[in-house]
Amino acid sequence: MVQINASAITYTKGGDISKILLGTAFSIDTQALGPRQVVIQALATPINPSDLNQLSGTYASKPNYTSELGTSVPVAIGGNEGLYKVIEVGKDVDTYKTGDWVIPKLPSFGTWRTHALVTLDNTENPDPFIKVSSDDDKSIDLAQAATISINPSTAYQLIDQFIKDWDPNGNDWIIQNGGNSQVGKFVVQIAKTRNIKTISVIRDGKPDQDEIVKELLDLGGTKVITDKEAESEEYISNIVPGWVSGGKVILALNCVCGKSGATLVSHLTGNHLTDYRSPHLVTYGGMLGQPLMYSSSESLFKNVTSKAYWLTANTKRNPQSKVETVKKVLDLYKSGDLKPVPFNGKEYNIKSSSDEYVKLFLEGIAESKNGKQVIIYN
Amino acid sequence: MVQINASAITYTKGGDISKILLGTAFSIDTQALGPRQVVIQALATPINPSDLNQLSGTYASKPNYTSELGTSVPVAIGGNEGLYKVIEVGKDVDTYKTGDWVIPKLPSFGTWRTHALVTLDNTENPDPFIKVSSDDDKSIDLAQAATISINPSTAYQLIDQFIKDWDPNGNDWIIQNGGNSQVGKFVVQIAKTRNIKTISVIRDGKPDQDEIVKELLDLGGTKVITDKEAESEEYISNIVPGWVSGGKVILALNCVCGKSGATLVSHLTGNHLTDYRSPHLVTYGGMLGQPLMYSSSESLFKNVTSKAYWLTANTKRNPQSKVETVKKVLDLYKSGDLKPVPFNGKEYNIKSSSDEYVKLFLEGIAESKNGKQVIIYN
Repeated sequence: MVQINASAITYTKGGDISKILLGTAFSIDTQALGPRQVVIQALATPINPSDLNQLSGTYASKPNYTSELGTSVPVAIGGNEGLYKVIEVGKDVDTYKTGDWVIPKLPSFGTWRTHALVTLDNTENPDPFIKVSSDDDKSIDLAQAATISINPSTAYQLIDQFIKDWDPNGNDWIIQNGGNSQVGKFVVQIAKTRNIKTISVIRDGKPDQDEIVKELLDLGGTKVITDKEAESEEYISNIVPGWVSGGKVILALNCVCGKSGATLVSHLTGNHLTDYRSPHLVTYGGMLGQPLMYSSSESLFKNVTSKAYWLTANTKRNPQSKVETVKKVLDLYKSGDLKPVPFNGKEYNIKSSSDEYVKLFLEGIAESKNGKQVIIYN
Repeated sequence: MVQINASAITYTKGGDISKILLGTAFSIDTQALGPRQVVIQALATPINPSDLNQLSGTYASKPNYTSELGTSVPVAIGGNEGLYKVIEVGKDVDTYKTGDWVIPKLPSFGTWRTHALVTLDNTENPDPFIKVSSDDDKSIDLAQAATISINPSTAYQLIDQFIKDWDPNGNDWIIQNGGNSQVGKFVVQIAKTRNIKTISVIRDGKPDQDEIVKELLDLGGTKVITDKEAESEEYISNIVPGWVSGGKVILALNCVCGKSGATLVSHLTGNHLTDYRSPHLVTYGGMLGQPLMYSSSESLFKNVTSKAYWLTANTKRNPQSKVETVKKVLDLYKSGDLKPVPFNGKEYNIKSSSDEYVKLFLEGIAESKNGKQVIIYN
């Protein structure tokens, strides 16, 4: 009998994150592997804001509670994003092989675990993983693969899903708040590959503002302004129109809402009387509790369309859309057009105890205010 | 020489409506009629809120200034909606004949005039009128025809343009504020012809509330509630869901914005995780200066799409869309499915002076706060 000693970050009920997390030790017997089972081992598991909302119980996408880890009561396993390596496959498995790097296709997989034993017999989800690399074809590296599932996929769909007729000659612009976010950094890069210009709005008064601006411009951003500048009449009426010139600000990406979202709308270019294209405000975040709001006359006279974007929902409704998006992002990584956005990696020795595992996650969660945290396994 | 003595309500510059209106007397020599000219005589000219915004200079659709009335400086003629009778046609005109009842196809025609001499040589607008009735085919009456151009056309397009897959079995609902508006009354009637159920939100505390509710239910409305009821948790969580039952509130029609628009969104039915249909908030008014606003989490979790609707813009961009809409509304009148919504008619003797004409319009404008005013010519 070959036992793998594994750990998972679990909880029995959503609530105060500092109190509910449990470290669950469990084992996987690889000699008892079923013919349609695979064992995967974690390479990297990010901590995303939506993971924390899910732990708090405030997220509309609910976790799955399971008894598969052998706990006395069903538990949910934290996390929705993770990069794994396939380490064992049953004899009837031909879609995955050992050495493949894979990510779960669907949300709520419960990625915060060192290992998982997965049965491929679920007819509703026969291919539960998307392969992103393999031992034979090491086409992307760990930094690229670790976070491919959520942030670059979100950025790709935000650019791809709402405006279908992007001008190929560089006359179309995107404006986004949250310019310094992970998604924002992927947006500027992916926009550049399509000759779309970008204005990234960042928070005013950050001590490292010059570095942030430089990073965004180096990634391919066209312009970077602060939220105070974006709100000012001078930028709305003169400076930004001067940059955009004969072009159009046709897409506003909003992850903040409130006044910040309203300001984005003031920068959109549209004329209901003469244009056939409707400028779009797309909101993909704003959980701070501020409403979505903007001028009703601007909405009417510019013919603004406002839509909600949620990667998790798109994936649940149409899993294949996620597969296709990840493929497009992989291609961008392979071509060198996309660079991974830096994150803070926290190393975890996979042989450590489940208590150590919880401790590391609690640290990562506490630090995730300051930037994206990713647990890297060795 | 046969002279028609005509009057028009004109202005040389937008501004304070009580001060800028001029009565311009002019004449039309019918014996000098060109081969591609027609003379039309007013039957009814409504006063709409958008006309007043245009006079104030605050409307994005600007008036045309003209010297055709023989004034010393160019003037704009008030009004965008009007029913006319063709009284003279030039020898080469075959698209209109005397006795036809017509409405201008495009906005900013300048309808507030007793007569108009129109040349059909404009290659950009070769058919400037939509025929709604004629001496040979008196299929609709004056009350139906007088206001066909704007309010029922708006209601028709609001229902037709955003939700394409209405459930034919009566499981889809519309919620609208401004339930007691002219557009609101056409919405309940047109919705009923398609087996769409309606909730009309009216202002709380009106002394004639019982009559308003009865009128809306008689017109075919399903439910009528006050704005205070609509805002209440009891209506949002229990009463309205009880009415809607297994159905969906899939379209919210908003002409108010602010809290009232936000409340409509709270009544929309949507689930981003499982539904493919996006519930729509469609805003077609809200010039009170309140922003468009609603909960960002509702937007995200319900997958709400918010769009702007503006009949004038649709018509300017695609005049044929207006022709087709009026045809559909005419069919509904002819079939008896649509009843004209009462307005306050003010009679004007077409032989009176232009001073009298201005006086009547100023009265009508002052009274238009209390309901729709229409100048009827005799």
